[in-house]
Amino acid sequence: MPVAGVDLGGTNIAAAVVDDAHRIMGRARRRTPTEGPESVVRAITRLVGDLDPAPEAVGVGVPGPIREGVVQTAPNLSGWQGRVPVQAQLEAALGLPVVVDNDANVGALGEWLAGAGRGARFLLGVWLGTGIGAGLVLDGRPYTGAFGGAGEIGHVVVQRGGDLCGCGRRGCLEAYAGRAAMERIVVGHIEAGRETVLPELQAQKGKRRMTSGVWAEALERGDAVAVEVFDDAIDALGVALGGAVNLLDLDAIVVGGGVAEKLGPPLAERLERAMQEWLLVPDVDRRVVVAELGDDAGVIGAAALARERVLTA
Amino acid sequence: MPVAGVDLGGTNIAAAVVDDAHRIMGRARRRTPTEGPESVVRAITRLVGDLDPAPEAVGVGVPGPIREGVVQTAPNLSGWQGRVPVQAQLEAALGLPVVVDNDANVGALGEWLAGAGRGARFLLGVWLGTGIGAGLVLDGRPYTGAFGGAGEIGHVVVQRGGDLCGCGRRGCLEAYAGRAAMERIVVGHIEAGRETVLPELQAQKGKRRMTSGVWAEALERGDAVAVEVFDDAIDALGVALGGAVNLLDLDAIVVGGGVAEKLGPPLAERLERAMQEWLLVPDVDRRVVVAELGDDAGVIGAAALARERVLTA
Repeated sequence: MPVAGVDLGGTNIAAAVVDDAHRIMGRARRRTPTEGPESVVRAITRLVGDLDPAPEAVGVGVPGPIREGVVQTAPNLSGWQGRVPVQAQLEAALGLPVVVDNDANVGALGEWLAGAGRGARFLLGVWLGTGIGAGLVLDGRPYTGAFGGAGEIGHVVVQRGGDLCGCGRRGCLEAYAGRAAMERIVVGHIEAGRETVLPELQAQKGKRRMTSGVWAEALERGDAVAVEVFDDAIDALGVALGGAVNLLDLDAIVVGGGVAEKLGPPLAERLERAMQEWLLVPDVDRRVVVAELGDDAGVIGAAALARERVLTA
Repeated sequence: MPVAGVDLGGTNIAAAVVDDAHRIMGRARRRTPTEGPESVVRAITRLVGDLDPAPEAVGVGVPGPIREGVVQTAPNLSGWQGRVPVQAQLEAALGLPVVVDNDANVGALGEWLAGAGRGARFLLGVWLGTGIGAGLVLDGRPYTGAFGGAGEIGHVVVQRGGDLCGCGRRGCLEAYAGRAAMERIVVGHIEAGRETVLPELQAQKGKRRMTSGVWAEALERGDAVAVEVFDDAIDALGVALGGAVNLLDLDAIVVGGGVAEKLGPPLAERLERAMQEWLLVPDVDRRVVVAELGDDAGVIGAAALARERVLTA
């Protein structure tokens, strides 16, 4: 049965129609409108309407916490203020059952069903980007928690009284390993007089931000500031992943996002080593792997969620 | 159907036969033998044999990590070395189906089914003692993880590069909020010349350790060292519980153990405030409560686990 998956990002909206075996049958894509929620809901409605074959349900991954189909906040979507009942709005516009979930959750679900997490039963999918999010599959089922807000590993504290995080608290994982925070840390080093190729590489590539590609090249060149900041990010990720494993006894961790795509399996190996030292019971068959599906993880996962939640309800 | 629950502790073994409604129908109790695993298995076999009515299955809570019925390590049981296949040994001795799980897991299960956690669907039961353990109920089901080792919140790191923990790592929750660590911290303060009533209270009560009762009285008297060390333990617990909620979106936290029994609801209120400031989404109907069942949580939970795992398998 064809089901649509939609990955709503800050820059693009990707939609696909997916079959029962999690294979993509058709795609549609466009820039994310910047005029607020109504324009985005209209754009998704049109994209889904263009899909061939026509889907029988729709799953949407949204960059923000979701409660019962309502987007609580979406700081990366321009013009979004307050809570937006995306699920109800899309159901009304499309006349189809719709399920909305956090983008990290649907990405983890996609990797579990059709990517690097296949065969795991207790999986954390962690997404390294501007911020850090995660999705969970526990005991062979997608896990979103009591109110739909699970997976916020970026705001698990790894260092009491530590660095200020974008969320206003101190010591969160994201304050050390989120790309936005890492860029702030680099700027601090530059202001303190240290030299680094990072801004030069950023300018050469014509980027507004220190992207994964900028980081990958600086690390390859052995830039001291880049290596130091990245090492600390790996260390913080090792602490947070180790904590998650001590608490949840996972059997697989899938690492995705731009930097995982750029650095590949060596990143997974580094994270596994960084995590191992924090595990109370380290000698277990547990894998840390990089994501395989790239941008398709979100659409495949969103479609699968719609299939599970809506069509089997 | 009568099922036995056994709570194997470092000092005592408590056994009870429990009915379908989680009510205790009969009890037996004795000191824990100190001659190693075989003597303990014999003691449990006899205790269970003495129960009336005779149980049809047996659940056992053990202070240590368990994998598939095998106790991996049990530092609080004297004479235990290496892995001990307690489940297989008890099944052979009793001729009954047996399930073995970690004591924190069965305690959480007991509080969820018959105590302070009734009605929750996403519960963490955290046990404050010499060390700190936890058990989870996720999406309405007991959760033990991929290999049976979930719930080790005591070894979730709250402070990278922080204090040395009994496990050999640095910065674990237990290094700040476990009673053994708190006692070491107090000794450090005394060696640094600070005054505190804690050792005096300990001597008055004739205790070998700074027990929950000693702490409760020192706090009530406003002893500066006790207040400071305890405040920091609460702070560390708030960080760890906040991280668990950010990751798992729980709807209930039950706090048990000696100090929870001594301090009661005010402790739960303090922990809730300490946790709230770390929550990414704080405005949710989530409760933090103290355990209700005392020592019965373990036997009721162990019996329930046997009922679920063994009899419905």
